[in-house]
Amino acid sequence: MRRGRTEKVLVQRLRAGTLQRVPDEVVVEEPLEIRLDGHLVATTMRTPGNDYELAVGFCLGDGLLGEAKVLSVRYCGQGPAVESEYNVVTVETGGRAPVPEPRIGNVSSSCGLCGTSTLVDMSTRLAPVGAEVVFRASVLAGIADQVSEHQDLFTRTGGLHAAGVFTPAGEVELVREDIGRHNAVDKVNGRRLLDGRFDSGSLGLFVSGRASFEMVQKAWAAGFGTLVAVSAPSSLAVEAARAAGMTLAGFARGGNINLYCGEIELDGP
Amino acid sequence: MRRGRTEKVLVQRLRAGTLQRVPDEVVVEEPLEIRLDGHLVATTMRTPGNDYELAVGFCLGDGLLGEAKVLSVRYCGQGPAVESEYNVVTVETGGRAPVPEPRIGNVSSSCGLCGTSTLVDMSTRLAPVGAEVVFRASVLAGIADQVSEHQDLFTRTGGLHAAGVFTPAGEVELVREDIGRHNAVDKVNGRRLLDGRFDSGSLGLFVSGRASFEMVQKAWAAGFGTLVAVSAPSSLAVEAARAAGMTLAGFARGGNINLYCGEIELDGP
Repeated sequence: MRRGRTEKVLVQRLRAGTLQRVPDEVVVEEPLEIRLDGHLVATTMRTPGNDYELAVGFCLGDGLLGEAKVLSVRYCGQGPAVESEYNVVTVETGGRAPVPEPRIGNVSSSCGLCGTSTLVDMSTRLAPVGAEVVFRASVLAGIADQVSEHQDLFTRTGGLHAAGVFTPAGEVELVREDIGRHNAVDKVNGRRLLDGRFDSGSLGLFVSGRASFEMVQKAWAAGFGTLVAVSAPSSLAVEAARAAGMTLAGFARGGNINLYCGEIELDGP
Repeated sequence: MRRGRTEKVLVQRLRAGTLQRVPDEVVVEEPLEIRLDGHLVATTMRTPGNDYELAVGFCLGDGLLGEAKVLSVRYCGQGPAVESEYNVVTVETGGRAPVPEPRIGNVSSSCGLCGTSTLVDMSTRLAPVGAEVVFRASVLAGIADQVSEHQDLFTRTGGLHAAGVFTPAGEVELVREDIGRHNAVDKVNGRRLLDGRFDSGSLGLFVSGRASFEMVQKAWAAGFGTLVAVSAPSSLAVEAARAAGMTLAGFARGGNINLYCGEIELDGP
């Protein structure tokens, strides 16, 4: 039996110096093992739900698919624990994806490991996205509120990150939630890939929390021209967004944004 | 030349519908490769600084050290890029730590992969911490404000997580910041291990953000009896804290907390 996405727990609330025992909802966190053509590529702690999207989006964002198409996605857990049946997902490309390199275990040739070389690797692998549309300032400044209206789990548990896709008109097309910000983005990108949607260049990607390098990497791999984060970007995130030709906005809340690169259109007087 | 922990960028601030170009500080994010006795065990994106602590704390939290003592820690980068010199750290135990298992690359025997089995693994490896002291409610409810006074980078960049160690009297002993919450905790635990401090059972660990399973795992591995998070815990975090005999509080802000397990002492009238 599959576990739900939230669980009830008894919690003692301290308010004004006194404790009160009340039922509370917490978000479920379970490991997911992701395989590509039978090779283990990641184990991530995630909120169950949309696991196929997560697995496909992860492979896309990490550049593991190459030019290969996803032929099928399935659960492949086994063993005595019924719970674990839904904690292993295999993405199949019929062996057309490059065999993933073992990344942990033995010493890699890591001379030159640094942010700059990480960026160079990505620029070699990915073409610049270019921002096909210029978003209006008011759309970017208001998108956090738009997305939070679609966040059903967050309001119940207060413990979830969200990623969302939005149009130049400010309409939210797709929202996914997860205890991990990176998982929420993978779920969004996986859903779009599974749906055969390749119009990311004319859409915006929203992420709750900070814009780390990883967020820009995933947005870039999925072809988004515009990335908006609720909180601060890192140095490497700004560099990566510039290399990608992406529009990057941070601190998108309260009607304000900070624009780190790219263009926006000011709303008329 | 080592890069700093923050970088200046030019940003366009949208305020009241107009853009203003101003200098801004963003937090630096660079990859760090962690090796244990020559074996690559992780590559993590982190804020440079306290890298030895991060490497040692990571190995401790992941159970990689076993019973082995850390003999030395050093940078071991090489290659043409000067920047990368400080992005590889080796922890040496003279080969006394167990050889780390490759975890990514080939299919592992993962039957039974689930939260419960993850917990069973930890309970086998780690003794319950027991909470050696019972903290006063007011100390736990006020610790977020105490720690934020020690966060020098956050106030400049708005983009950093913090972990801190505090005493039953509410004094903050140690604070570390990083773009990754898990890295901040690793830095704290590494510092304490390098200092030969093994009194975690009578101290509290504070983390900004949410209490995921990983946070409880790291607190448990370091022997902390009390964990306090600013935001929500996950289901598996609550289960792990119970298995560890730990006191777990969440939503610690504004003078309130939610107590998920363990005991606290109410302040007298």
